[in-house]
Amino acid sequence: MEKDSTKISMAVIRRLPKYHRYLKDLLDKNITRISSKELSRVIGFTASQIRQDLNNFGGFGQQGYGYNVDALYYEIGKILGLDRTYRTIIVGAGNLGQAIANYTNFEKAGFVPKAMFDMNPKLIGLKIRDIEIKDIDTVEEYIKENNIDIGIICTPGPQAQSVADRLVKGKIKGIWNFAPVDLKVPAHVVVENVHLSESLFTLSFLLKHCQNESSGTL
Amino acid sequence: MEKDSTKISMAVIRRLPKYHRYLKDLLDKNITRISSKELSRVIGFTASQIRQDLNNFGGFGQQGYGYNVDALYYEIGKILGLDRTYRTIIVGAGNLGQAIANYTNFEKAGFVPKAMFDMNPKLIGLKIRDIEIKDIDTVEEYIKENNIDIGIICTPGPQAQSVADRLVKGKIKGIWNFAPVDLKVPAHVVVENVHLSESLFTLSFLLKHCQNESSGTL
Repeated sequence: MEKDSTKISMAVIRRLPKYHRYLKDLLDKNITRISSKELSRVIGFTASQIRQDLNNFGGFGQQGYGYNVDALYYEIGKILGLDRTYRTIIVGAGNLGQAIANYTNFEKAGFVPKAMFDMNPKLIGLKIRDIEIKDIDTVEEYIKENNIDIGIICTPGPQAQSVADRLVKGKIKGIWNFAPVDLKVPAHVVVENVHLSESLFTLSFLLKHCQNESSGTL
Repeated sequence: MEKDSTKISMAVIRRLPKYHRYLKDLLDKNITRISSKELSRVIGFTASQIRQDLNNFGGFGQQGYGYNVDALYYEIGKILGLDRTYRTIIVGAGNLGQAIANYTNFEKAGFVPKAMFDMNPKLIGLKIRDIEIKDIDTVEEYIKENNIDIGIICTPGPQAQSVADRLVKGKIKGIWNFAPVDLKVPAHVVVENVHLSESLFTLSFLLKHCQNESSGTL
């Protein structure tokens, strides 16, 4: 549908999951059709912003009709690559890795965890739900043999780069990185970071600089 | 130090924790002084970008000397509000809430979890490390009596807004929100979101659209 999606800015790309989420909410409320003005009110972007964003992918609204919620939800899902499933592994079976393994919403969205990996012999062999924790030394082979798409890195920072190197050797396609480091990987491997500390420190910045002025009462 | 930090763009603000992290890495390697060129190489922003970013806060480099790593680390920490501690509570004692409670690095950075809250009677009274899980019905009172700064919301989406309303009533100052919703709170309450599904869907977008072209070999 889109002409050259690699030219689309990351800002637009990062808004797409938000559209997807709001459209799902509308569907859950049995709203099947929505004007761009009303969609704008719900989602908090301007109607013009929404039109611009969606025009990157061919545009979906019809003059005088607005948007068909179901069709738009489906199309944005397809653009996001949610019309298929992904085989994932979780590396690092500590608290965060276990929390992600236990969080079934990712699986419902099509991201299916096939195995976990750790270096701690006490964890190897255990299961989280039905997902087995395996020896990190076997990860490259496992990725190749099981055609794994995405590696989720939940290790401490110091281990993350060597884990990423192993995933790359196993021919992983994408990495979802929770470790507080910026990974070095070849250009064909996609990395998306979740840097929790950076998010928390952004909050403390905002608390320090933006709170007092807008509130004299606290 | 800064003149009007509320005018600083979110893009700059979100880069500050990254500077902080890289400066810490340099300190750990006993590097006490660094040229803007070398800092640029390490952190991956241009030297001019770094100068611009830091000039928002008064500028720190000296012509011909570069940056004093320790001083810059300290100053950026101060700008980020990391020169004090924060009293936090975690609402939602499921997998993610427990993972955050167990993750001691946030505490080392000054974000000290004082209590957890849940609505599940089976969880109330249990402890994660030494952090007690309390009844959600007592959260407003607890925030007021214990001068809590930050509420960390780890509930499922449908509960998040009503939890946020309670935190606001308790006079919380900031919310770190992991629930997949956009919270409505008064302007004086700062919200920072971690929308994990949106991050994951961004990854699948990039896998679908940006991977094949740069890699003919996978």
